[in-house]
Amino acid sequence: MQGVLDIPAELGNLEALLFESLPKVELVFAEQLVSDLPPVDQMCQHVERYRGKMLRPSLVLLCGAAANPETNSLLAQEKSAEVITQSHIVCGAVSEMVHMATLVHDDVLDEAEIRRRGQTINMLKGNETSVILGDYLIASAYELCSSLNSPVPSRIVGNASAVMCSGELLQLHHRNNWSLDEATYIEILERKTAALIGAACELGSLSTLGFDQSEHPTTIALKSFGVHLGVAFQIQDDVLDILGTTETVGKSVGKDLDKGKLTYPLIHHLSVANVEQGARSLILIERAANDDTSVLPEIVSALQTTNSIDATKSLAATYVSQAKAALAPLPISSGRSMLELIADAVIQRSY
Amino acid sequence: MQGVLDIPAELGNLEALLFESLPKVELVFAEQLVSDLPPVDQMCQHVERYRGKMLRPSLVLLCGAAANPETNSLLAQEKSAEVITQSHIVCGAVSEMVHMATLVHDDVLDEAEIRRRGQTINMLKGNETSVILGDYLIASAYELCSSLNSPVPSRIVGNASAVMCSGELLQLHHRNNWSLDEATYIEILERKTAALIGAACELGSLSTLGFDQSEHPTTIALKSFGVHLGVAFQIQDDVLDILGTTETVGKSVGKDLDKGKLTYPLIHHLSVANVEQGARSLILIERAANDDTSVLPEIVSALQTTNSIDATKSLAATYVSQAKAALAPLPISSGRSMLELIADAVIQRSY
Repeated sequence: MQGVLDIPAELGNLEALLFESLPKVELVFAEQLVSDLPPVDQMCQHVERYRGKMLRPSLVLLCGAAANPETNSLLAQEKSAEVITQSHIVCGAVSEMVHMATLVHDDVLDEAEIRRRGQTINMLKGNETSVILGDYLIASAYELCSSLNSPVPSRIVGNASAVMCSGELLQLHHRNNWSLDEATYIEILERKTAALIGAACELGSLSTLGFDQSEHPTTIALKSFGVHLGVAFQIQDDVLDILGTTETVGKSVGKDLDKGKLTYPLIHHLSVANVEQGARSLILIERAANDDTSVLPEIVSALQTTNSIDATKSLAATYVSQAKAALAPLPISSGRSMLELIADAVIQRSY
Repeated sequence: MQGVLDIPAELGNLEALLFESLPKVELVFAEQLVSDLPPVDQMCQHVERYRGKMLRPSLVLLCGAAANPETNSLLAQEKSAEVITQSHIVCGAVSEMVHMATLVHDDVLDEAEIRRRGQTINMLKGNETSVILGDYLIASAYELCSSLNSPVPSRIVGNASAVMCSGELLQLHHRNNWSLDEATYIEILERKTAALIGAACELGSLSTLGFDQSEHPTTIALKSFGVHLGVAFQIQDDVLDILGTTETVGKSVGKDLDKGKLTYPLIHHLSVANVEQGARSLILIERAANDDTSVLPEIVSALQTTNSIDATKSLAATYVSQAKAALAPLPISSGRSMLELIADAVIQRSY
């Protein structure tokens, strides 16, 4: 999250702790993937291109800090090692590795689409490598997770991964379903994106409180924060897809539609448009789904007539409010304040 | 393994225990995959077509029995529940689920090959489902494994999965490498196939002795048994590919070559053939790798001139001997005898 947030001075200690801990996460991450086989190491270097904003590890660390009532005084005494332990670092690396595995496998699905327009055999080799590399990442994540002295984190990560897959399968099942409703759309987001972010927050809390504290009100609160934040994050992605430049818009909306995926702006539009308008938009959507990108500007105009972009922003804001409300049981602390800042940043971001 | 082995009367009690325990493994397997989402359940039913011989769960159960010095007397007293516990059943289901996940993902790679000859978009959808379904299986396996009260089985399964992937990546790296040597070929088998079979045997032993007994001589012996058995199993697959009917042979040899994979009979052939013969065979191999199936009978004839099929059988037999030798530290028992029978069956099988 470096450089993204406008962090007030009173959170300086925690910010410093975060920026000194994230490289440790990266180190554990890299060390876990080292192989005695040079070709494996070589392929793991491709993973670099999936490097993201380290959102999940940041949440593990900050939830770890927020779950510790002593964080502020420990930081003031420069006892940061008592706030962020090796367990937080390991859980951070695990959550990023699981996330990266899903990105690598998403690529297989995306490449499938590209190939549909006529690619070469090289792409197939890339596809095979992506399947196995994703599997290697997920296996390494589980192996790393089981280095902790309890089966609980493995259970949380295994469960979150299974839920993520069920979300993918649900989305696949609703491919080209232009009457997808809001409830199913949210269920897909909760499973595909929010489950792992919720798990990251839960792991942060448990790394502080102990792995037998799954039912502790702090753990429940932080997990709920993560789940709501994850949904908001994904809805905001839908907004950003629309709000890019015209050219980018076309590509993004087109990409989702080409895969038969309805995003929230379209779901809202189709649910509030009058019969005539709805019928016209459905025809445009069908054409976009069949690779006709010329209709995309018209689709964006249609969304504006029903204020569907504002409605999407407002839905994301609702989830951010719920995420922040979930933190209510926690005492005021720098950890909690930083989580609130991140929640706000999710809907303020434009990248 | 039902119906495969010719089991002597004195092993009747253990055979009965095995055949009464395997359905329990299947039940745990099925229950773990149940989802609250009907589309997910629907897709999981496709998994049925990957049903195998339940080799890995059988090894978990039998190694569990072999690790228990009291097995014979417990079975005589009809105390079978003290031999095969819920931990054995869970580890059996986990090992089969991990195996099945790899089969599902192998299909993605295979379908890629089929598609290369011009398939439709439906195949792509199948591909996407296979990627996610495989991920769902592996995540479910990890979740199930972490239901045990120790992180050790998760560590073993995570590690074995990562090693399997590294074997796949190594194989991919050596695609179309017609000078692949025996050592690298064996390393690929050890990683791709033997690691999980070794892990299954280790989990069986640990389920009996306790999860802190990784260094127990019995556990080390049973794991070594599994690793050697796994290598033998895969080499025997190479023999069977060659020994089928002419039509089947062509397809099998052609399939491996088309994927750029050298199997042991060809590695042996190329290493012992004289220069002229080797050069001729290389040309045939290149043609087969480029989809020319007409050369396959000629390749099989070439293998016979260098006795490469016998050499392959003999290599498999060596690994079976090593597997059985690894059992030496264990007392004579019905469990150990059954494992020896299975080891022999691996190279006697013709399916």
